[in-house]
Amino acid sequence: MSKNSSLTSGSFTLPGEAGYEKLTLDLAKKWGADTIRDSDGTQLSPEIVQAGYDIYSTVCLVRSVQPWARENLNKLQQNFLMSFPVVAEKSSVTIKLLDGYFTEQFVVNAEDNPKSWWQVFDRTTGKEVSKKQWSFDAKKGTVKITGAEAGHKYTVNFLAFRIWEEISMYNHITNNWGDREHLAAVDPMHPETQKVILAFLDKWLKEHPDTSVVRFTSMFYNFSWFWGSDQKTLRDVYSDWADYEMTVSPRALTLFAKKYGYKLTSEDFVNGGLYNSTHNAPSRRYRDYMAFIHDFVIEFGRKCIDLTHKYSKKAYVFYDDHWVGVEPSSPRFKEFGFDGLIKCVFNAFEVRLCAHSKGVATHELRLHPYLFPTGLKGEPTFKAGGNPTLDAKNFWIDARRGILRAPIDRIGLGGYLSLVQPFPDFQDYIAGLANEFRLLKSFHEGDKPYVAPFKIAILTAWGDLRAWIASGHLHAGHDYNELVESLAGLPLDVVFLSFDDLRKKGVPKDVKVLVNVGRAGSAWSGGPEWDDAEINALLTRWVQKGGGLVGIAEPSATPSRPGQFFALSHVLGLDRDRGERIANGKYKFTVADEKHFITADLEKEPDFNKEVDGIYVFGAGTKVLLAKNNSPRLATHEFGQGRAVYLSGHKFDYQNTRLIHRVLFWAAKREAEFTVWNTSNIRTESAFFAKQKKLVVINNSGEPQKTQVWNAKGKAIDVALKAHDIAILDV
Amino acid sequence: MSKNSSLTSGSFTLPGEAGYEKLTLDLAKKWGADTIRDSDGTQLSPEIVQAGYDIYSTVCLVRSVQPWARENLNKLQQNFLMSFPVVAEKSSVTIKLLDGYFTEQFVVNAEDNPKSWWQVFDRTTGKEVSKKQWSFDAKKGTVKITGAEAGHKYTVNFLAFRIWEEISMYNHITNNWGDREHLAAVDPMHPETQKVILAFLDKWLKEHPDTSVVRFTSMFYNFSWFWGSDQKTLRDVYSDWADYEMTVSPRALTLFAKKYGYKLTSEDFVNGGLYNSTHNAPSRRYRDYMAFIHDFVIEFGRKCIDLTHKYSKKAYVFYDDHWVGVEPSSPRFKEFGFDGLIKCVFNAFEVRLCAHSKGVATHELRLHPYLFPTGLKGEPTFKAGGNPTLDAKNFWIDARRGILRAPIDRIGLGGYLSLVQPFPDFQDYIAGLANEFRLLKSFHEGDKPYVAPFKIAILTAWGDLRAWIASGHLHAGHDYNELVESLAGLPLDVVFLSFDDLRKKGVPKDVKVLVNVGRAGSAWSGGPEWDDAEINALLTRWVQKGGGLVGIAEPSATPSRPGQFFALSHVLGLDRDRGERIANGKYKFTVADEKHFITADLEKEPDFNKEVDGIYVFGAGTKVLLAKNNSPRLATHEFGQGRAVYLSGHKFDYQNTRLIHRVLFWAAKREAEFTVWNTSNIRTESAFFAKQKKLVVINNSGEPQKTQVWNAKGKAIDVALKAHDIAILDV
Repeated sequence: MSKNSSLTSGSFTLPGEAGYEKLTLDLAKKWGADTIRDSDGTQLSPEIVQAGYDIYSTVCLVRSVQPWARENLNKLQQNFLMSFPVVAEKSSVTIKLLDGYFTEQFVVNAEDNPKSWWQVFDRTTGKEVSKKQWSFDAKKGTVKITGAEAGHKYTVNFLAFRIWEEISMYNHITNNWGDREHLAAVDPMHPETQKVILAFLDKWLKEHPDTSVVRFTSMFYNFSWFWGSDQKTLRDVYSDWADYEMTVSPRALTLFAKKYGYKLTSEDFVNGGLYNSTHNAPSRRYRDYMAFIHDFVIEFGRKCIDLTHKYSKKAYVFYDDHWVGVEPSSPRFKEFGFDGLIKCVFNAFEVRLCAHSKGVATHELRLHPYLFPTGLKGEPTFKAGGNPTLDAKNFWIDARRGILRAPIDRIGLGGYLSLVQPFPDFQDYIAGLANEFRLLKSFHEGDKPYVAPFKIAILTAWGDLRAWIASGHLHAGHDYNELVESLAGLPLDVVFLSFDDLRKKGVPKDVKVLVNVGRAGSAWSGGPEWDDAEINALLTRWVQKGGGLVGIAEPSATPSRPGQFFALSHVLGLDRDRGERIANGKYKFTVADEKHFITADLEKEPDFNKEVDGIYVFGAGTKVLLAKNNSPRLATHEFGQGRAVYLSGHKFDYQNTRLIHRVLFWAAKREAEFTVWNTSNIRTESAFFAKQKKLVVINNSGEPQKTQVWNAKGKAIDVALKAHDIAILDV
Repeated sequence: MSKNSSLTSGSFTLPGEAGYEKLTLDLAKKWGADTIRDSDGTQLSPEIVQAGYDIYSTVCLVRSVQPWARENLNKLQQNFLMSFPVVAEKSSVTIKLLDGYFTEQFVVNAEDNPKSWWQVFDRTTGKEVSKKQWSFDAKKGTVKITGAEAGHKYTVNFLAFRIWEEISMYNHITNNWGDREHLAAVDPMHPETQKVILAFLDKWLKEHPDTSVVRFTSMFYNFSWFWGSDQKTLRDVYSDWADYEMTVSPRALTLFAKKYGYKLTSEDFVNGGLYNSTHNAPSRRYRDYMAFIHDFVIEFGRKCIDLTHKYSKKAYVFYDDHWVGVEPSSPRFKEFGFDGLIKCVFNAFEVRLCAHSKGVATHELRLHPYLFPTGLKGEPTFKAGGNPTLDAKNFWIDARRGILRAPIDRIGLGGYLSLVQPFPDFQDYIAGLANEFRLLKSFHEGDKPYVAPFKIAILTAWGDLRAWIASGHLHAGHDYNELVESLAGLPLDVVFLSFDDLRKKGVPKDVKVLVNVGRAGSAWSGGPEWDDAEINALLTRWVQKGGGLVGIAEPSATPSRPGQFFALSHVLGLDRDRGERIANGKYKFTVADEKHFITADLEKEPDFNKEVDGIYVFGAGTKVLLAKNNSPRLATHEFGQGRAVYLSGHKFDYQNTRLIHRVLFWAAKREAEFTVWNTSNIRTESAFFAKQKKLVVINNSGEPQKTQVWNAKGKAIDVALKAHDIAILDV
């Protein structure tokens, strides 16, 4: 896009607002916008759409066919729910299926034969109750179990249609929309639905001649979000940004069985009420199901995109909301034929998530704050008491760390533009921010920022499919998420490996350090994958031969071998006692008090949030650098020709980001190269663009900072930075 | 014993010391001793043994036959050890078996065919290595494994003889005994050894005509205690006060197989290096083995006791050191024919442990401080800088709580009497303490102190066999141990149930509250016992019908059902999230701020030591009384007609002892009776002896206290107490 090549205009999407035509066009000019967008549920006026800007128009296909949706209840989307457990007091027990769930979201699916799809479980024995022992009363919405055991706990896995689409529901309830229509999401798994959707899209495309880019919100299936009946105390019964729970239907299950040769059951989805949270290690069966849905979303999605292209419009997809099955990190993502991917970002890891996706020409970020009166937690933003400029600065310094490391093509805002009117300083700040972005973007063009001369691999059960991601935004206190946020702004080349990747190809040659992080049983740590002796042996040999292993929290943890918990404990030189080793003596260690390369930049005892305790070491070969309550927090261990480092947790902050940076270089045995294009002040970071000979230094803090940056020859360059500021040096 | 009936003399055992005959006899008079004892390794002089006192003489049979022991290496005691893990770098790997172990304690047993008894494990796969793949080099003390997998971790389970008896070793090394003989313990499992021991005992009995009581130290097998090679950093590789590891031998295993019809393997003992710690849930196989050894210890022990009785001497047994297989809580204990049981006590729970044993006439306590220059942690006691009187007071107020509740027949001291010479205030204090004890003892005669009008049952995997006990002394921070210490001094009738007891007979009729406490997987919480749906259903029904359940830490925890952790979560109204429920919403609770019966005596936020976090509640039915970091610490839940209370941990202190006391009354729905014969001041406790019409009030603190005690009619009685003091009131 040649329009985007200017350093003062282009690459910026502005949310227009009908009724504020002058403001829209003034700010479009001030911020150098090349594109004006509408938002879900708003409409732009002719003065705006015909002002010569590119126009983005949002469309959410699955909730677009409203009269039809409600008239075709059996084509609505559905999912399995587990009824809340009921304890039998005698030999029969009746369970009201939707008790505890929000009945404006769910109705029981009485259309598809319950005996074919549902299951009743005795959760006390863990066994399924025979189908002969229960019956469904459609009128009452209950299941009656006979031959129950008094004192046993029963649940029903049942299918429920969703009669209110979740994003519509959230906005409606949050904004008190009163009697405005409840939108429902149709399920495109049915050929009839596909026909209706394509007809709608065709008509819509015809009716939007000024639209240059169709922004799909997103494809078909929302992330999982089950609401409870009492929204004050338990609104979210279950919610997971990347779980496929809300894609299921008898038709999907039937097609799956045909394709994969085996049948999934309701319990594959319900999993005792844990469902298939992205944070827990996935089963093979669930992975198969994900692949099945991904196939379908590509297949039908492609038809929608082809139609869009037929009208000479571009197709962008929003990397949130109904993104399930889209999988922008998947190698098949390019098959959709999308032109752009838009990610709403709070943090650096989301920037990397967006940049990571292959198969689209344009990667665009929707920055925070959204132009709404209040923020996500109800705090004032664009209203009395708010300071949107400071909010914007704080969001920007987080996102900028990612933008410095990976190329992003566009940025933009969302919400109600009129709200910025009383905040002229905000208007000014965004103008500067947009220019700063365009400059950083220009550095990435034909160039790459300097990175460490070795690769880092993160090993998880998901591998590259969930690269950078734990969820839709930062889960504070979640080790994996905190770690990827730290890494997202560091000058490192990070790759994401799954256990299957290891099985197929081992550790890639250019990877010098492998990181495993998370609690036992999580998808991030790996869970049952560690029961595979081959994985264990492969990594053991790899470190023996010189590899570097970094373990955080409960790396390689599996409870399946008595007397050991971390499968790689011999490599780490330590293990975790969960209380079973009271009778086993613990080696008495002393905390090394000499300065160590790893801890050289520590200003104070680091805060790792909720960290792992009960760590014990095997002997003097394990050097403990930090400890609390006699449990190491940071320890190193040389193993064969390789090195291992253990950390009891991680929290994203200046100090810990520097700490992990040093840990990685130490584990790689590349300490000598650590200072190259690096900063002395931990509140600052730098990026060197070799071809353009530009050194970028950023201040990640809200106070002025001075720092030194060393070039490849070790020469120090002094830089002073204002709060939140950036410096560009020719070097 | 009529000698014991005086309130100023009798029931007291004094450690005599040769060379200090006058001091011995003076203090015997001052303290009202009726008995003078020797100590292990000391000898009393004729002036003492013929002064008209009863004489206790200690004898440790298994280390008494020293020249013979060393000449009959294959009759020494032995045990399985797991070699420290070694990671294979290529297809053969050699393991030096005793690497890391103290070679003055262990030698490899090369006498019994290793291929018959040992096992080699690949700890990476968890599988045994074929016996064809390894060979033992007796000369080098190594095992060589061929066909190993590079990167896998190997260990050898091997038999080792113990050439230095552990108590002798500990005293020798602690007291720098230089070249004094290393005593070894013989194994009476061999008929030859039995012959030698009986001959020794017969001779010994003949040679001790003045001895009235033989104090056995104890029977044959010491608690498990494996020492490491580097005693500065890892002296205790493994140590457990009640584990049967040190009883094993090829002969024992052969006899076991014959009796039980199946063979035990080395791994039944080694268990991946965890061995069979009392704190972990035991396997059925290990329980069988314990019963087998208990049988043997009774069978041969009885012969030794019969011989003792033949010489008209009494036989007492020491409830420490070589007590394994003796099992004073076992219903078969009476078959030994012992006359007395002596327990060394620091705390109240050990007093209850001693009092709990049936089948002996005399229950005697050995009080602390021992008459040694330094205490257990090396702090000065009977030397410059020490304050033995204050130590004695502090030990006494702990032990006294137990003595108040359960009848004890005798007390005594141990160690070197001469050390008390420079401490006349100590001499005076013990004189008073001895009288205080005699008075308390007199109250128990023909009477019982008032207890709550309902029974409390503690449910553990061990049941009554490990009643009151976690270990030889208080393990601070161990919920179960801390709890029994609190209960040991409360006016409650506590019984201990195993899961087998429940299966056979259900909850006894007179039990109103059942307590389950401890970490997941522990013997105390129950571990895999909770996988039994019948147990779960039985207790569920019991609470539904009005029972009270108190869960502490991880009650009823088992990881075997997805989506739930506490098997009785429905009864408790809460469960624990170990990190797997990130995507599951948590019910928002508020901490009840009105005064509650349970929390009425709290003076400050209680300290539960290391407590359990991640607790979530199910709804408004669960009342949260205390919480930290959004995790309930104390919550109540009504279930059916019963009540449940959850506590996230327990630590023995005044406030928590009162808290648990109130919890039990609330769970029993007997709040109205809580004040009966109870104190207002939590630093005091009281006992009412109905027949004797005596009210005893004790001050458990080191400061003066005022309290009220209510009688059964609710009338308050005011009592003032000096620091550490006791008051006796006629009521």
